[in-house]
Amino acid sequence: MTGATTTAAVRIVEVGPRDGLQNEKQPVPAATKIELIERLAACGLPVVEATSFVSPKWVPQMADAAEVLAGLRRRAGVAYPVLVPNLQGLERARAAGAEVIAVFIAASDAFNRRNINATTDEALQRLTPVVAEAIRAGLKVRAYVSTVLGCPYQGAVAPAEVVRLVRALADLGCYEISLGDTIGVGTPGRARALFRACADAVGTARLALHFHDTYGQALANVYACLEEGARVVDASVAGLGGCPYAQGASGNLATEDLVYMLHGLGIDTGVDLDRLVETGRWISAVLGRAPASRLGRIERRVTCV
Amino acid sequence: MTGATTTAAVRIVEVGPRDGLQNEKQPVPAATKIELIERLAACGLPVVEATSFVSPKWVPQMADAAEVLAGLRRRAGVAYPVLVPNLQGLERARAAGAEVIAVFIAASDAFNRRNINATTDEALQRLTPVVAEAIRAGLKVRAYVSTVLGCPYQGAVAPAEVVRLVRALADLGCYEISLGDTIGVGTPGRARALFRACADAVGTARLALHFHDTYGQALANVYACLEEGARVVDASVAGLGGCPYAQGASGNLATEDLVYMLHGLGIDTGVDLDRLVETGRWISAVLGRAPASRLGRIERRVTCV
Repeated sequence: MTGATTTAAVRIVEVGPRDGLQNEKQPVPAATKIELIERLAACGLPVVEATSFVSPKWVPQMADAAEVLAGLRRRAGVAYPVLVPNLQGLERARAAGAEVIAVFIAASDAFNRRNINATTDEALQRLTPVVAEAIRAGLKVRAYVSTVLGCPYQGAVAPAEVVRLVRALADLGCYEISLGDTIGVGTPGRARALFRACADAVGTARLALHFHDTYGQALANVYACLEEGARVVDASVAGLGGCPYAQGASGNLATEDLVYMLHGLGIDTGVDLDRLVETGRWISAVLGRAPASRLGRIERRVTCV
Repeated sequence: MTGATTTAAVRIVEVGPRDGLQNEKQPVPAATKIELIERLAACGLPVVEATSFVSPKWVPQMADAAEVLAGLRRRAGVAYPVLVPNLQGLERARAAGAEVIAVFIAASDAFNRRNINATTDEALQRLTPVVAEAIRAGLKVRAYVSTVLGCPYQGAVAPAEVVRLVRALADLGCYEISLGDTIGVGTPGRARALFRACADAVGTARLALHFHDTYGQALANVYACLEEGARVVDASVAGLGGCPYAQGASGNLATEDLVYMLHGLGIDTGVDLDRLVETGRWISAVLGRAPASRLGRIERRVTCV
């Protein structure tokens, strides 16, 4: 073991406004969502997932997707991906001015069946024309693979199945594939082994980490994968959100805690941590709760380096 | 990077009954403390820190130290260290049947001054006859060095100062020296570098990790240090406790979350995780709060391996 972590920059993909807010039961006004996205971009986050063009019947909280995306003052150099489940969603996203979309699939048959009533292969078939059409139209496509380290319905998920999907999504032209530990069951050894297997298939630069902190393992898993060359990490300001379809799945990794670790490792993120903590406290107050991040709960940070 | 974590066993030092309970404002009955210690030992934990023979004026919660220690049905093969601040405490501990004591010192002058009104060198001088007398009497002595990665009063702490203390404590005959990140500010790179420096001085086998989760970094720090050969880790069931003298210092690493990570890494601990989670829920309920561990909050764990 050398213990060396390179100082190459890590790109953080902020998913709070979409992945975080989508499960809020009380409607959040579009103006608040827009303010959140703009504040996050102003913190220096290079990618802020803005909203989701899923059917409002599935996720009522995201019914204002077009309004949010259109109302946004976009910053140069910041990407604002939007989630898209199908061709209809893609059309709505394009009409609203989306430049980057994100598609999703689970690595578990049981999860795909419960979530979208399809086998994994059927899910891949459905997603294929969406990606193709988006790319044809000049959009960039990100892909989420969920349940990569375990499924709430079937338990174990074979790493080979994850690798197969990652390769297929890369072949379709997705510029980035995010590995989602949807229920947060992964531990560092399995996380890094899976990352390495996927990196062997498509390269490290094409992969993102999307770890949940349900079992408290998210940061340790990120750290282990950094050692394997991971350079893109998804996180949610104030730890907002979780997965609505997965029992016990709560606790997105909080962006503040991730940034604190990365900066402590000497890894540049471009993010202003003080401003990010303030943003996390603000949105938490708006939602009427304490921040789920650790950093957001510390009254006075101590500088010890 | 090989990513290999050896499968050598890790010894967990459970500190909940002492480090955890000492800050409880409401008195906890001795019978409850005894039940907690006995339950923890029954989970398979090899070391359960039982109580503290500090002055009841300083820590009223530990005024029943002798009663707790004497009332305990000890399990064969389990050690029950007790904290001892001075010769008077040592005498009380011996009289109550202690076989292992723990002494403490901070690596920061500012912290020692505020905590015990002494410089670090004076603190070391005060501690020296306590360790000598304990060893002469046939007791084993563990030592805590606190603020090893940062001090709430002075900020940065020089790694060389930590190494100096670790070496001094080893020379005095302490069988184990626990490296305490009292305020939880450490990140994995600094944690592993400090561990390595200390291990170069006294060997890995003589060191324990004592990380707080205040900044959410504790498990990542443990993981990084495991890669450097760390094999003893302190943790507190249900995340009980923190440091009463350090502003913002809360959040002991929860034993449940640590055990989950270690078992996920294929590292044996001897601990029955289900029973431990149950114990953490029980003591949290007794104290009238939700467990601070992540595992304790999960309704139904999903087995994914």
